[in-house]
Amino acid sequence: MLNAAVIGAGRIGKIHAENLVQRIPDTRVVAITDVNLAAAQETAARLNIPHASADYRDALRDGIDAVIICSSTDTHTQFIIEAAQAGKHIFCEKPIDLSLQRIDAALAAADRAGVKLQIGFNRRFDPNFRRVRDAVERGEIGQPHRLHIISRDPAPPPASYVRVSGGMFVDMTIHDFDMARFLIGADVDEIYTVAGVMVDPAIGAEGDVDTALIVLRFANGVIGSIENSRQAVYGYDQRVEVFGSGGSISTANNYPNSAVVSTGQNVYRDLPLNFFVERYTESYVVEMRAFVDAVVNDTPVTVGGSDGRAPVVMARAARKSYDENRPVKLSEVEND
Amino acid sequence: MLNAAVIGAGRIGKIHAENLVQRIPDTRVVAITDVNLAAAQETAARLNIPHASADYRDALRDGIDAVIICSSTDTHTQFIIEAAQAGKHIFCEKPIDLSLQRIDAALAAADRAGVKLQIGFNRRFDPNFRRVRDAVERGEIGQPHRLHIISRDPAPPPASYVRVSGGMFVDMTIHDFDMARFLIGADVDEIYTVAGVMVDPAIGAEGDVDTALIVLRFANGVIGSIENSRQAVYGYDQRVEVFGSGGSISTANNYPNSAVVSTGQNVYRDLPLNFFVERYTESYVVEMRAFVDAVVNDTPVTVGGSDGRAPVVMARAARKSYDENRPVKLSEVEND
Amino acid sequence: MLNAAVIGAGRIGKIHAENLVQRIPDTRVVAITDVNLAAAQETAARLNIPHASADYRDALRDGIDAVIICSSTDTHTQFIIEAAQAGKHIFCEKPIDLSLQRIDAALAAADRAGVKLQIGFNRRFDPNFRRVRDAVERGEIGQPHRLHIISRDPAPPPASYVRVSGGMFVDMTIHDFDMARFLIGADVDEIYTVAGVMVDPAIGAEGDVDTALIVLRFANGVIGSIENSRQAVYGYDQRVEVFGSGGSISTANNYPNSAVVSTGQNVYRDLPLNFFVERYTESYVVEMRAFVDAVVNDTPVTVGGSDGRAPVVMARAARKSYDENRPVKLSEVEND
Amino acid sequence: MLNAAVIGAGRIGKIHAENLVQRIPDTRVVAITDVNLAAAQETAARLNIPHASADYRDALRDGIDAVIICSSTDTHTQFIIEAAQAGKHIFCEKPIDLSLQRIDAALAAADRAGVKLQIGFNRRFDPNFRRVRDAVERGEIGQPHRLHIISRDPAPPPASYVRVSGGMFVDMTIHDFDMARFLIGADVDEIYTVAGVMVDPAIGAEGDVDTALIVLRFANGVIGSIENSRQAVYGYDQRVEVFGSGGSISTANNYPNSAVVSTGQNVYRDLPLNFFVERYTESYVVEMRAFVDAVVNDTPVTVGGSDGRAPVVMARAARKSYDENRPVKLSEVEND
Repeated sequence: MLNAAVIGAGRIGKIHAENLVQRIPDTRVVAITDVNLAAAQETAARLNIPHASADYRDALRDGIDAVIICSSTDTHTQFIIEAAQAGKHIFCEKPIDLSLQRIDAALAAADRAGVKLQIGFNRRFDPNFRRVRDAVERGEIGQPHRLHIISRDPAPPPASYVRVSGGMFVDMTIHDFDMARFLIGADVDEIYTVAGVMVDPAIGAEGDVDTALIVLRFANGVIGSIENSRQAVYGYDQRVEVFGSGGSISTANNYPNSAVVSTGQNVYRDLPLNFFVERYTESYVVEMRAFVDAVVNDTPVTVGGSDGRAPVVMARAARKSYDENRPVKLSEVEND
Repeated sequence: MLNAAVIGAGRIGKIHAENLVQRIPDTRVVAITDVNLAAAQETAARLNIPHASADYRDALRDGIDAVIICSSTDTHTQFIIEAAQAGKHIFCEKPIDLSLQRIDAALAAADRAGVKLQIGFNRRFDPNFRRVRDAVERGEIGQPHRLHIISRDPAPPPASYVRVSGGMFVDMTIHDFDMARFLIGADVDEIYTVAGVMVDPAIGAEGDVDTALIVLRFANGVIGSIENSRQAVYGYDQRVEVFGSGGSISTANNYPNSAVVSTGQNVYRDLPLNFFVERYTESYVVEMRAFVDAVVNDTPVTVGGSDGRAPVVMARAARKSYDENRPVKLSEVEND
Repeated sequence: MLNAAVIGAGRIGKIHAENLVQRIPDTRVVAITDVNLAAAQETAARLNIPHASADYRDALRDGIDAVIICSSTDTHTQFIIEAAQAGKHIFCEKPIDLSLQRIDAALAAADRAGVKLQIGFNRRFDPNFRRVRDAVERGEIGQPHRLHIISRDPAPPPASYVRVSGGMFVDMTIHDFDMARFLIGADVDEIYTVAGVMVDPAIGAEGDVDTALIVLRFANGVIGSIENSRQAVYGYDQRVEVFGSGGSISTANNYPNSAVVSTGQNVYRDLPLNFFVERYTESYVVEMRAFVDAVVNDTPVTVGGSDGRAPVVMARAARKSYDENRPVKLSEVEND
Repeated sequence: MLNAAVIGAGRIGKIHAENLVQRIPDTRVVAITDVNLAAAQETAARLNIPHASADYRDALRDGIDAVIICSSTDTHTQFIIEAAQAGKHIFCEKPIDLSLQRIDAALAAADRAGVKLQIGFNRRFDPNFRRVRDAVERGEIGQPHRLHIISRDPAPPPASYVRVSGGMFVDMTIHDFDMARFLIGADVDEIYTVAGVMVDPAIGAEGDVDTALIVLRFANGVIGSIENSRQAVYGYDQRVEVFGSGGSISTANNYPNSAVVSTGQNVYRDLPLNFFVERYTESYVVEMRAFVDAVVNDTPVTVGGSDGRAPVVMARAARKSYDENRPVKLSEVEND
């Protein structure tokens, strides 16, 4: 029986707490903490979690094996370091941090303590993308030449959120940067970004963009691209295609049902799933199961600390390329 | 908080127990019983159900509000009658029974006791079929003219099972008979069956068939058809189409992922989901939630006793039509 | 160089004449005749056909190798017999006739004369259905168990046409009867029909039906079904599915383009092709090429006289089954 | 009746000659010329074209209204100029030329002579792409934000062809450059290219690339991208997607049939059409009909001289960007 504690009872903290309680065997959630005590208490009550607290240190007590960090980004590295020092295995939501120096300090702490550290890139555990990775790995499409990722949100965040988000590349594209590395199984050397404000001028007023095409040169020669939009009016648009010497593999969106209606006007179906909670429901369960398995069986985690660092570097390079309108090497990103 | 007890810890009993424990809010499973005590105990331990027993009467004790009957078909009517007399609300798996007289006795008992009785036709709660029903109800395809149901299992049952199953029409097609009534929202008057043994001669040796086309004349004039096979080598084939004066609606199978691979040979995707547990996972949750809601809010159940009786009559008419190679009216089925 | 003459300058006669002139190499259309001389002349002028006439005998002159009979059904057998006696190879549109005795006389005449006789079941030459036939022939789906044909017209004919058409089974379903025999490669023993008037009461007033489900028992055990409607508001609905021991094959409708549009309302595409001329354009070319090849190379035609007779028997059995509401053996159809 | 002459009896010349003879009403092909006289004679004989010649000037004789230039690229501007001077309307295959100065001279000549000049970008007349353009024009997907074009050939050309082709961007991508301008209805300001040799080292040995991702900044703010590969092993891959403020529209490949086969291994269909002649058959007919209509009705051509020039500039910018690994403005392309 693994004893886990959750730090942060916001949207993603609730998802992980619920999955750990209901869907992950041989695991117990013994505490949940949140600076908003009421939020921690509400979730604790609903899920029969014995301890709720406003103090994150209650998640680092004796008897707790693993801690699930779902608090705001600016607290991640501190909590990773303290949890590592307390000998806890760590699952931390993305992004680890916006500062590479702080990220490096956190990774070093986990490394020194010899604890597991898994970063929350849940999309790797989605069956569509997993299937694409399998195809690439087993050579089902030969040697990969091209990767194309379409990643569009159903609706833009409010300007207030944009202001503190670190910008679209680190807030939204970060998932796609990870997906790119995951699917191709290689690192990226250089990035070129074309972007603009097409969805909401308020986003532009915050100095951010809402629409982008990002070109990736992988170290192994593959040419990648990522399409982002903060608003696809038809729902959550999440597709990839990998093209190679032996063929191609591509995924489609997920729909609430498979029904197709033909009328005198046209042939239609309902819109794709609209929200990440519905679209990626199962991926969160599989992700957490993988973390628990790695801890229980003492095997390497599937998404480690360096997988958490790399997309932050890519996000910074993407922004720099946008600012300077030229291809930017990842080695140009300052280690600050 | 609703207190429920489960009778029967076989495959379907486990599914319902697990869903009630993990996925249905405000419900507690307080007991599980099975003639095989070890089976009951194993599930009780896994799901923290406080009481396990070999005696079904332990599911009818005071303090229990509702009983979920998942035992073998030949015990259903007895348990319904005793549960009704004990004032319990009842969820009972399909088919209620093979004898119409026993079914009528059970329905009468539930009626007299004023308890809810819901029959386990889970497919009504599947989002694909629910979407088709919605289209029919709201006139999205006009006035329905035709209904076609494709229902093929991935693999045939062993002859030993076939022997005690009551035959394909009552064991397998019964879901499709219910689906036909559900989708069209009307009763069937007459049935014509063409069937044969094409999959496994051992099924024929038991006097049963493994392949059938069943034609339905609905009271409202709609012409229906049901295709059955005990073996679709590509997986669980579950599709419907309704055609009407204003258009048509049809559903596709469900797949483990949406990936499509193009190679030098062909363009392919992985096989559809293979097993009813995967295919209909969510429908069991929604079904049970609907039952709990009906009990808690004292509203009518969505699949009542008469909905459990009608498909048994249809199964008997289908067999009679097969035996006599002629269309058979449902009114010809003997009330035995 | 093959010299051909066309009898009948109506819709289908024009299609064949145009294809012969423009698309079939090594063939010359030397004459076209029609009781409506102006129609013959108009087509002759447009296609540079040297001879137009109101007298069908001008299509049977010396120097003409083959005659394409596209006149009204009641003239087919007479023209077949005279063309055969004149030593012409014959392509004749479907149905050959409504009388089995007249059909037999025409087939006997062609047989005696040793001329080719091909019947105009163009759908056999459509790439979708050809692909299904190939799959069945090469065992791609194992041993066939079930055949399902969906065949719906975009709009019903006027009552005046219905009156002289011989009824839906011989006018419309006849294509599907041929398709059934073609796809399965076997004959049908018994037919059961459920039908009704759902589209247009005027069709019912003529004693005909506009909606039907027709069940076929093939001699080789396959169970077939044909769905017909005189009106699919979304366009021409022409699909088949064959299911067998090793899998299934199914076809979709043809569309004017492959574009899919996603908006805030739904995901849609344009309607399927609406008219048989667009839907089956290429099949008419391939069909005629096959006829010319058979004549030029003296090989057997792919759709012979007996293939023209069998669907007429099936249409008669279908109607008899509808009238008597019972399965009817083809051997019960009177040879009148 | 329009009298046309065809210069060039190679692959594309034959296609146009055949379409003009067989599929375009009110048009006569009166001459065909080719430096290879036998080629001209062979096609003339097959299509009953009265005059075959080795001298292109025979296509510019009195009585000829329009000339279809299908000779090698290096002859295009000379023939355009001479044809214009002779008062002929001109259809010219793409690219007009590789030299912008020669292009400008040719366009000026046509302009001075007041003759029609249409450039052979046949893909604009394909129903899939036409449908996308319609959607953009009528605002069906709102304001366009992104355009993505996938354009992959089934097999690479031999190195000998690559050597004289002008390079992939001007030989292959030129169609996509035109498509980009057509679909968005705007010009491109800046191009960034990532490319490589992944398919065939012999192509690299000629100094060319075989795989590319080309980013386009449109003057109206739309961000475009074009994917090219000289080899998609599964066939001719020709798809586009336009995403905008109100939704998206995307097209799929064209297939020889719609049949889908499900077996115990997977669910598959046959490969997409493999060759441009099959894939774009109809577009060549519609294109030529549009040219003839423009001449006969004296209306503007749909693909004019400036539409033929712009993609050449884009191809040059794409190459320059590749050589210098930086975004290149179209204004940087030298007018040589």
